[in-house]
Amino acid sequence: MSKLSIKPLADRVVVEPAAAEEKTAFGIIIPDTAKEKPQKGIIVAVGNGKKDEPLTVQVGDTVLYGKYSGTEIAIEGKDYLIMRESDIFAVL
Amino acid sequence: MSKLSIKPLADRVVVEPAAAEEKTAFGIIIPDTAKEKPQKGIIVAVGNGKKDEPLTVQVGDTVLYGKYSGTEIAIEGKDYLIMRESDIFAVL
Amino acid sequence: MSKLSIKPLADRVVVEPAAAEEKTAFGIIIPDTAKEKPQKGIIVAVGNGKKDEPLTVQVGDTVLYGKYSGTEIAIEGKDYLIMRESDIFAVL
Amino acid sequence: MSKLSIKPLADRVVVEPAAAEEKTAFGIIIPDTAKEKPQKGIIVAVGNGKKDEPLTVQVGDTVLYGKYSGTEIAIEGKDYLIMRESDIFAVL
Amino acid sequence: MSKLSIKPLADRVVVEPAAAEEKTAFGIIIPDTAKEKPQKGIIVAVGNGKKDEPLTVQVGDTVLYGKYSGTEIAIEGKDYLIMRESDIFAVL
Amino acid sequence: MSKLSIKPLADRVVVEPAAAEEKTAFGIIIPDTAKEKPQKGIIVAVGNGKKDEPLTVQVGDTVLYGKYSGTEIAIEGKDYLIMRESDIFAVL
Amino acid sequence: MSKLSIKPLADRVVVEPAAAEEKTAFGIIIPDTAKEKPQKGIIVAVGNGKKDEPLTVQVGDTVLYGKYSGTEIAIEGKDYLIMRESDIFAVL
Repeated sequence: MSKLSIKPLADRVVVEPAAAEEKTAFGIIIPDTAKEKPQKGIIVAVGNGKKDEPLTVQVGDTVLYGKYSGTEIAIEGKDYLIMRESDIFAVL
Repeated sequence: MSKLSIKPLADRVVVEPAAAEEKTAFGIIIPDTAKEKPQKGIIVAVGNGKKDEPLTVQVGDTVLYGKYSGTEIAIEGKDYLIMRESDIFAVL
Repeated sequence: MSKLSIKPLADRVVVEPAAAEEKTAFGIIIPDTAKEKPQKGIIVAVGNGKKDEPLTVQVGDTVLYGKYSGTEIAIEGKDYLIMRESDIFAVL
Repeated sequence: MSKLSIKPLADRVVVEPAAAEEKTAFGIIIPDTAKEKPQKGIIVAVGNGKKDEPLTVQVGDTVLYGKYSGTEIAIEGKDYLIMRESDIFAVL
Repeated sequence: MSKLSIKPLADRVVVEPAAAEEKTAFGIIIPDTAKEKPQKGIIVAVGNGKKDEPLTVQVGDTVLYGKYSGTEIAIEGKDYLIMRESDIFAVL
Repeated sequence: MSKLSIKPLADRVVVEPAAAEEKTAFGIIIPDTAKEKPQKGIIVAVGNGKKDEPLTVQVGDTVLYGKYSGTEIAIEGKDYLIMRESDIFAVL
Repeated sequence: MSKLSIKPLADRVVVEPAAAEEKTAFGIIIPDTAKEKPQKGIIVAVGNGKKDEPLTVQVGDTVLYGKYSGTEIAIEGKDYLIMRESDIFAVL
């Protein structure tokens, strides 16, 4: 996870999605139901937050986020997602 | 109810849903009507709240919440719900 | 009206609906029109209010509330409604 | 207009609708057009207002309000309307 | 334009609509297009404004307002409109 | 551009639309695409702004604004637009 | 990139879109998926920001923004986009 030359604005973060796996190193299994499933990834870049609201996640955090959150971008040939911190449910 | 390796963000909490039972240890019966029915569960992880608004529920609280509240996640093979504190109606 | 083992969150209250009666002890008659009719009940549990906004109703108050307000719950075999204070029109 | 045993919450008021009349003692005629027509009534009970916003109408004021404003209630056999102060257009 | 016995609430004003004329004393011609046309009238009564926001129009001002703004009322046999100050575009 | 006898309220301004031209004195060409095109005009009257927010445009400014912004009015035989300052994209 | 004679209002910026290229000097590849793709460009003019919120991007920044963000304008024969700073995802 080398340092990326991208700086998200305000409360946005860049997430590297985890490879789809049935059972993770943390023992989290994304359940197979009809409900919207959260996804797992690692924060690789963070913005400076909004006025009076610094971000609470940091680079390196493994996070859960909504299935349809964020916008896809590719940096140096790899796919990432850029999303707002409020799209993130939890840090694992 | 062992400690979970998950930290919800902001005003989110992780709830372990109670097994569906007609009559609980607390004497609560979820009524069988056409209205949306609240569900019962136990808080297993809480966030740090929003700016100037710490959470009022804590780990171990038995809570009532809306039937369609939250997002399903599975941790170490068990199903949980992650939701906002405002989705919770009451502590029992 | 014994003390209930339920604590509503924030600005929510638990109301015990009055039995449907045409004319109450207070002389209130719920009119029979096509408009949405308010209902009458007694507050049996109250939350702590929102930040800087304590509740203005208290346990024991007889209140009028909207016909479709609140969520049904059953405690110790009796039906109650849990709703926000803003769903309450007036104290009788 | 005896004192009513009802206390509206927050910014709500109880209005006794005026009898439908073509020309009032004040010379106001409700025009007969396709537009929503305001109605006239007398304030019979007022709430304590919202935080930092006391009510500006008082018991005894004759007011104009929107045709579909408020909720009907009956107290001691008479019909009243309970509405928010913002539903009131003007004091006559 | 005698003094009217009506006091609008908050940020509301009472306007006496100008007679429909093609060219006014002020040289304003309401254009004949498919767009919503503003109307002209004279302020005959004003409210006390909202908290910390006194009104900027006053009785006697000739104003332009949206074609569908306000609610019709009749006082002493004449038609008026009661509307919010924000429905007024400009003072002529 | 004589002084107009019109005073817009709050954050409204009166704009004299520029004649439709393919290439302006400023070298701006409104592109011919399927997207909504901004229009060019000159500010001829401004309001006093909203509480704590004075206007940043002034009489004489050449401005770009959205194609469907504002309401048409005619003053002394000429067509103008009255719009909010937020409908203006930029000063040229 | 000569200085442009245009001053965006408030939190708006003018962006010169980058030529569509598969792989940029920065190694960013816009992925070819069904999702909304961000676009890349260079800031050529910035507004003064909103009250208490100065802009965080500046002239010369290379930025990513949403595919459908902004309004097209042409200045001195070249196409630009005028958009709000919040439409910008990140600085590269």
